[in-house]
Amino acid sequence: MSDPFDLPAAHPFGIHNLPYAVFEHDGTSRVGSRLGDHVVDLCSIPGAPYADAWAQPSLDAFLALTLADWRHARAWLQELLSDREEQPALAGHLIALDEVTLRLPFTVGDYVDFYASEHHATNVGRIFRPDGEALTPNWKHLPIGYHGRSGTVVVSGTEIIRPCGQRKAPSDPAPVFGPSIRLDIEAELGFVVGGSPTTLGRPVSVGESDEHLFGVVLLNDWSARDIQAWEYVPLGPFLGKSFATSISPWVVTMEALRAARVALPGQDPEPLPYLRGEPTADGATTAYGLDIDYDVEWNGTLVSRPPYRTMYWSPAQMLAHMTVNGATIAPGDLFGSGTISGPERDQRGSFLELSWSGQEPVTLSDGSTRSFLEDGDTVTLRASAPGPDGSVIGLGECTGRIRPATP
Amino acid sequence: MSDPFDLPAAHPFGIHNLPYAVFEHDGTSRVGSRLGDHVVDLCSIPGAPYADAWAQPSLDAFLALTLADWRHARAWLQELLSDREEQPALAGHLIALDEVTLRLPFTVGDYVDFYASEHHATNVGRIFRPDGEALTPNWKHLPIGYHGRSGTVVVSGTEIIRPCGQRKAPSDPAPVFGPSIRLDIEAELGFVVGGSPTTLGRPVSVGESDEHLFGVVLLNDWSARDIQAWEYVPLGPFLGKSFATSISPWVVTMEALRAARVALPGQDPEPLPYLRGEPTADGATTAYGLDIDYDVEWNGTLVSRPPYRTMYWSPAQMLAHMTVNGATIAPGDLFGSGTISGPERDQRGSFLELSWSGQEPVTLSDGSTRSFLEDGDTVTLRASAPGPDGSVIGLGECTGRIRPATP
Repeated sequence: MSDPFDLPAAHPFGIHNLPYAVFEHDGTSRVGSRLGDHVVDLCSIPGAPYADAWAQPSLDAFLALTLADWRHARAWLQELLSDREEQPALAGHLIALDEVTLRLPFTVGDYVDFYASEHHATNVGRIFRPDGEALTPNWKHLPIGYHGRSGTVVVSGTEIIRPCGQRKAPSDPAPVFGPSIRLDIEAELGFVVGGSPTTLGRPVSVGESDEHLFGVVLLNDWSARDIQAWEYVPLGPFLGKSFATSISPWVVTMEALRAARVALPGQDPEPLPYLRGEPTADGATTAYGLDIDYDVEWNGTLVSRPPYRTMYWSPAQMLAHMTVNGATIAPGDLFGSGTISGPERDQRGSFLELSWSGQEPVTLSDGSTRSFLEDGDTVTLRASAPGPDGSVIGLGECTGRIRPATP
Repeated sequence: MSDPFDLPAAHPFGIHNLPYAVFEHDGTSRVGSRLGDHVVDLCSIPGAPYADAWAQPSLDAFLALTLADWRHARAWLQELLSDREEQPALAGHLIALDEVTLRLPFTVGDYVDFYASEHHATNVGRIFRPDGEALTPNWKHLPIGYHGRSGTVVVSGTEIIRPCGQRKAPSDPAPVFGPSIRLDIEAELGFVVGGSPTTLGRPVSVGESDEHLFGVVLLNDWSARDIQAWEYVPLGPFLGKSFATSISPWVVTMEALRAARVALPGQDPEPLPYLRGEPTADGATTAYGLDIDYDVEWNGTLVSRPPYRTMYWSPAQMLAHMTVNGATIAPGDLFGSGTISGPERDQRGSFLELSWSGQEPVTLSDGSTRSFLEDGDTVTLRASAPGPDGSVIGLGECTGRIRPATP
């Protein structure tokens, strides 16, 4: 085994990343961090500052702490792992990744899915409403979102069973029932809420979002377009989405993504005051974007590279909007960005867009073509962001394979 | 104190009801049942069969048991409370209702809100889309529903803070921000899911619904119509609903509502096979309706009497639909029926309908008129159903008072 402390500077899981996951090893599940291809068994390290929280089989207790705690934990771990004298003793607290099983990292509270990519919303509008305006009149005034099903959020690697449901093509006289024939993905970034539960009637402002944004996961919002199309007017998506949502096992902290903060592409018209960011000490703004590059692989073929930096709405704006009506948030809540699509064709984050609703099928490396998912297909999302000093912050991967519909 | 065991035959909380709630008394919270105006302190009774579950500060553990357990508990309690010889000893396990505080009865998992009243959906369609068909083409083919925010489900009595948000009248050039000026209610029935968590890809059929429907609560889906109208296209209601949903503290079991099962008013066209009921041994069907009468009081004035028996979709159909795509359900999940509106004007379950969007204000007993809620207003839902042998099953009340928006 090579020295786990001697990682290349650009390793996606180096000292500047230190994400959290829940791993099972020797029969118990607990919280770990990651260094290279090893899990750091946090609660086993003598003097670990949050050993009680890290000994839990979920991140729930750690999420319920404060930004100061998360920063303290990060500083402690960075210092410890960088200390040459500590490394020999620490080696006994590292476990090779291939010896563990990664679990769903936290108990998902309320799950909200946004629609924050202008390119995605425009593409979908053009496909579904070719004769109307691509964007609805509200789109640039507020981050549109809706609640999804938290009980079917699953960890990467969980097989996805093709959903059954009602569909009705415009030419069909009546709906038919059966397995979805337009099964799709949505490549998204998921934001994991932490900190104290808030109080009814007390919104979280854009500027306060750091206190409540713990970290991010890769998120695949599997979508049955035929079921969705028939059901979604007037109350929004339901069964077309609720059968499964996959998230990556590693929660990358917002602290690790500090160097990836970028300006938003620009908002016109200027949003209402409660959605505006404010300048920060480092010359940036509290309504920041994130410079994260995605790879979308379909059966091993790289089919798209969605750029998160092109998203219209900031995560802080989404959080402020979600609570401006007085709704509470609590640790374990999760919200997705919505499909990440850039302006280019090979930057689209759903197959609906990539194949333009089936009119322009995608060719995979084995020569086969696809518009939507077939049984046995595997989709993997990967992403990374710039870290400090030329380092790379890996977000890991989120993968799922399609199983045939249950008879 | 009168004899708590000597209740009138038509008392809404007699021996045929026996709902469950979580009450706080002497500093601890635990599960209780109700007899007349007393809480039955279940876990304190020697030999109580589910004392461990009933000693918890929520119904969660009891919900996670099985239909056989729920029936066993009910039979045990009915026998015990009916036994004249036991009554003197039992009196020590009764606590007057006014000496306890009732809490949110269970941890709400996924919360779904349906739209199952044809009269309500028709009224809303006529108000919002006067030039189109009142019902969307999918309405009679599937129970339309969407996910709501479980974290803001509150127990009856919790004050409701007027939400702020964006609204835009059609004539406004741009949206404005401020307290909602069209704050409304939706009188609904909420269904509380129990039993074992289901497995991904394994739907719950109409016929299996008894295993997973533990009981009902009164539910008020507070709605800010102006926020909702601006945000809901294309992904459905979000902030217009997510600020608060009130439920009654007493969960009335489906077993107690056996005598209230009635045929649905009729479904045309016949729904797809997965939504069809099957005949039961007693000549009824698994896709039953419920004969429950509501009172809606606005500042003490009875303004509406929505009849639940007029609902188009059965609770068993809603459950089957919610899982037909393979989505799981788990104990603690909650789903609302949607607003209950009957065919008559004084049977409408929302103020949007009662005032016909403000065109026909409602006159209260103090002579004042209302279209939507004003600060300080109180709304109380009450309901009851027929029980066996001429008895009455009370569902208690669900009340909330409007506080001004937080500055």
